[in-house]
Amino acid sequence: MTTTFHGIIGYTVTPFDAGGETLDLAALGHSIDRLIDGGVQAIAPLGSTGEGAYLSDREWDEVAAFSLSHIAGRVPTIVSVSDLTTASAVRRARYAQEHGADAVMVLPAAYWKLSEAEILAHYQRIGDSIGVPIMLYNNPATSGTDMSVELIMRIVRQVENVTMVKESTGDIQRMHKLQQLGEGQVPFYNGCNPLALEAFVAGAAGWCTAAANLIPDLNQQLYQAVLANDLVQARALFYRQLPLLEFILKGGLPATVKAGLALTGLEMGEPRLPVFPLDAPGRARLAALLEALR
Amino acid sequence: MTTTFHGIIGYTVTPFDAGGETLDLAALGHSIDRLIDGGVQAIAPLGSTGEGAYLSDREWDEVAAFSLSHIAGRVPTIVSVSDLTTASAVRRARYAQEHGADAVMVLPAAYWKLSEAEILAHYQRIGDSIGVPIMLYNNPATSGTDMSVELIMRIVRQVENVTMVKESTGDIQRMHKLQQLGEGQVPFYNGCNPLALEAFVAGAAGWCTAAANLIPDLNQQLYQAVLANDLVQARALFYRQLPLLEFILKGGLPATVKAGLALTGLEMGEPRLPVFPLDAPGRARLAALLEALR
Amino acid sequence: MTTTFHGIIGYTVTPFDAGGETLDLAALGHSIDRLIDGGVQAIAPLGSTGEGAYLSDREWDEVAAFSLSHIAGRVPTIVSVSDLTTASAVRRARYAQEHGADAVMVLPAAYWKLSEAEILAHYQRIGDSIGVPIMLYNNPATSGTDMSVELIMRIVRQVENVTMVKESTGDIQRMHKLQQLGEGQVPFYNGCNPLALEAFVAGAAGWCTAAANLIPDLNQQLYQAVLANDLVQARALFYRQLPLLEFILKGGLPATVKAGLALTGLEMGEPRLPVFPLDAPGRARLAALLEALR
Amino acid sequence: MTTTFHGIIGYTVTPFDAGGETLDLAALGHSIDRLIDGGVQAIAPLGSTGEGAYLSDREWDEVAAFSLSHIAGRVPTIVSVSDLTTASAVRRARYAQEHGADAVMVLPAAYWKLSEAEILAHYQRIGDSIGVPIMLYNNPATSGTDMSVELIMRIVRQVENVTMVKESTGDIQRMHKLQQLGEGQVPFYNGCNPLALEAFVAGAAGWCTAAANLIPDLNQQLYQAVLANDLVQARALFYRQLPLLEFILKGGLPATVKAGLALTGLEMGEPRLPVFPLDAPGRARLAALLEALR
Repeated sequence: MTTTFHGIIGYTVTPFDAGGETLDLAALGHSIDRLIDGGVQAIAPLGSTGEGAYLSDREWDEVAAFSLSHIAGRVPTIVSVSDLTTASAVRRARYAQEHGADAVMVLPAAYWKLSEAEILAHYQRIGDSIGVPIMLYNNPATSGTDMSVELIMRIVRQVENVTMVKESTGDIQRMHKLQQLGEGQVPFYNGCNPLALEAFVAGAAGWCTAAANLIPDLNQQLYQAVLANDLVQARALFYRQLPLLEFILKGGLPATVKAGLALTGLEMGEPRLPVFPLDAPGRARLAALLEALR
Repeated sequence: MTTTFHGIIGYTVTPFDAGGETLDLAALGHSIDRLIDGGVQAIAPLGSTGEGAYLSDREWDEVAAFSLSHIAGRVPTIVSVSDLTTASAVRRARYAQEHGADAVMVLPAAYWKLSEAEILAHYQRIGDSIGVPIMLYNNPATSGTDMSVELIMRIVRQVENVTMVKESTGDIQRMHKLQQLGEGQVPFYNGCNPLALEAFVAGAAGWCTAAANLIPDLNQQLYQAVLANDLVQARALFYRQLPLLEFILKGGLPATVKAGLALTGLEMGEPRLPVFPLDAPGRARLAALLEALR
Repeated sequence: MTTTFHGIIGYTVTPFDAGGETLDLAALGHSIDRLIDGGVQAIAPLGSTGEGAYLSDREWDEVAAFSLSHIAGRVPTIVSVSDLTTASAVRRARYAQEHGADAVMVLPAAYWKLSEAEILAHYQRIGDSIGVPIMLYNNPATSGTDMSVELIMRIVRQVENVTMVKESTGDIQRMHKLQQLGEGQVPFYNGCNPLALEAFVAGAAGWCTAAANLIPDLNQQLYQAVLANDLVQARALFYRQLPLLEFILKGGLPATVKAGLALTGLEMGEPRLPVFPLDAPGRARLAALLEALR
Repeated sequence: MTTTFHGIIGYTVTPFDAGGETLDLAALGHSIDRLIDGGVQAIAPLGSTGEGAYLSDREWDEVAAFSLSHIAGRVPTIVSVSDLTTASAVRRARYAQEHGADAVMVLPAAYWKLSEAEILAHYQRIGDSIGVPIMLYNNPATSGTDMSVELIMRIVRQVENVTMVKESTGDIQRMHKLQQLGEGQVPFYNGCNPLALEAFVAGAAGWCTAAANLIPDLNQQLYQAVLANDLVQARALFYRQLPLLEFILKGGLPATVKAGLALTGLEMGEPRLPVFPLDAPGRARLAALLEALR
């Protein structure tokens, strides 16, 4: 099973109306078109940035179906289907596949800490239920579960359609180990924006980022400089966009990316409470950062 | 606003049928009666042990309504209403109040890390929506959010009906600080089983524990020894039950407590996947621990 | 091998002249007399509070010899002999024994992280070189080495004269485990001042504390309340002295205890740089705390 | 004040006789010649690898004087002068300067945790005492003190001759911040072997490494590939040497580097206890790793 995922993989946000109650699918469509116009190599709906965890099942289905239908194969798609119970993650994975997703992404979300055997069984069960590839996603900061590279490789070897790994711990040595233990055969992806340069240097196949909503050209140029083997240029491009990358991460991706899209004319509403929208000083700072990158 | 909560506050489990799909309310009723027969001073439905996080909204409502109706005021009740969005937590809190809960418990569950202002607003919004007291619950191991004692006291002072604090970090010095900053006026409760003795010694008003499903007499005797100012006896009782307390915590409360109830004749089904039920060696060890305490 | 160590074990400071260059043994003598007058059950020269790590070998020898000679058997003594190399720790342990120490204390000080085998061999080598008991001391905050309770018990079982354990991690559950794995036969001591009450409640044989330089009566009363099985009284005594205990720990024991002794008429000089003496606001706060306890 | 330090900065070991008691200066001379023959851009005597912390003052002086005299200006030198007391670090810094060191390196070694003001004063005092540049060294794993980049920049700005920063936390984002806050004007150096590639990519001026005792050509080629802007080549060279870099770090640099030098014909003796020499399986593994890189 080979993968077609590489380069800049853009995350979508999930737009709501003012009160945060109803979905604004028209706005979602605009933001998807913006991502594609920006040249992303793929799109990942319903990830962390997409507030997937804050949606009801009905809403989740609506966003997934709309996103896939609106992207309509213009770029490959990978839908985040994570949920607390295995049964719900399986249901979402099937739903995504039925609606045309090229792959699904699975974070082992947890309330009760999971054992390695429980995590493995979770991936196995989801993998057995679908026919598209799975990108395993490790992000202890949001999931509460840290998977060692050894465990990740065990899952990759045991579950046939877990073929890609997304790493977001912020520890570049995890990527070294993925490269070493995977012997270069298991493509891995960076999910930690401030490691954008180093991850590519370490051999990452792609960069999963919500920044592509705001600075798609700079993201793309960094990727192209790496492909062109031009370290000096890649370093310059990285440091140029780093303040923006740090800002959107530190401020919370849903809040900052929605605010950034609004600054560029695409109104996306606010994140759902308890998550706050970006406050006025934050919006001013974000506007200045974006202005400096124009 | 005074509290009537003290002593042993027992958690319920949520029984499912064999496949983990449908609720078994009859079994829930039996386990509630068992808790009350065991002499608990209060009951807390739908907590961590109750797999509240793994239920659909419809299921959550069913369990809340049934529990409150079945307890029927025999002991005070405190229902956990935590959810990822403020809107959903508010809805649950109102539902619990309408169905007779004496108080609600709120953990600031989070996917995206919450700022202190976001946490405070979450409690404020819930507090403004109901007329019963709130027990603020701090448990970073499950919620991913660690509230400092200073933040907790700020919430207690600002949100009128946040009148109780449950601490589960496992750091006894947090309870010292609750005692100091609360000047003895803010009742706090222990949610970390292995600190059962020290928490009472530090001044905790109660012990929220799922162990009351299995060893209610020993739990109660420990509390009574503390009330009787008999440290030697309390220490002996604590070390006697500590292996069981450690076992159920380490093995995961839903899995171990369900297994323990089954060992004593009350079939509760299994936890929902990805959480595994207790395996055969675990059940044998649990049986031996319970036997030793008879 | 039985131990005579129990109750309040007071630490000495190491007085210097104004510039921090030369030892002031006369002042040391006065502070030792003060400790003994305060009723301590034992004295521990050259511990962390005693700035043992900041002394030259020659100075260390002088302080050890003077302390033991001045105590002159009025209370049992336990001399901290920790050093980075095994050879130096052995030399100090022998020196302490030759000059009359009843026991020695050993922290596995480390620059390069030590393996469990290296730590065990370190204790074995020291144990083989002397004929007095060793108190193993676990304090990762100063040593950089955290010994699990399992490792500690392995050392206790393998090295004949390691007969006592001092625990300073601040995690009361370590003491539970010492009690459980040692089956009540391995006396353990508390080195974390804010756990004074809980450690005794958990079964600690003694409390190693520099607070005995400043508030020996309150320290002693807490110990006696525990011995008298009076939990209510012990709790009241604990919370009364807790602000002072927290202050001296947070401010750094050498700086705060020297300042506290100066406030009560015993001039001890200042800690050696880079450690700062307590500043004026700190001294005022300390004076107020001490005044409130009079 | 400009720096001449860049590229591969090799650490020396400190050879002892078989029992670990006496220095073997002849062996030290051989290993220095080996480093210079290997093409290092500079040499750093008495660092962590050089067991500086395990030497008596007299031994330290002997090793410093011999090293500087033997290097004799063939490459620039930077001598680690860290010690627990400010007075001793000042003495060593002066001694190093008097014996010809081009710069000194200072780690804020600590027994009692140091405040930021204490750390700053420590550097100020040392800086005021000498006329050569200081490389500030941050390595919380050995020093117990973690300096934030903000604190580091404060020290750099305030202490005139602190002109270089060595970062060993293993967190590449610290280097990003050094680059950003230093505006490219404060040269920083990497002290974490597994980050060799990423540190250069992030803009590090040099790599301080004990690996230059064993694989100087590979170290040098990596540096040259970065200078040549050849990312593909740099990545290949990095992954080629990474297993060796990881092995020597994990096994403890003094033990593994001494064993490695012995394997190549330079007998260096063993580390001082409690640090163990590399055991037989470790030596076999190291031999295989070195063989594979020939």
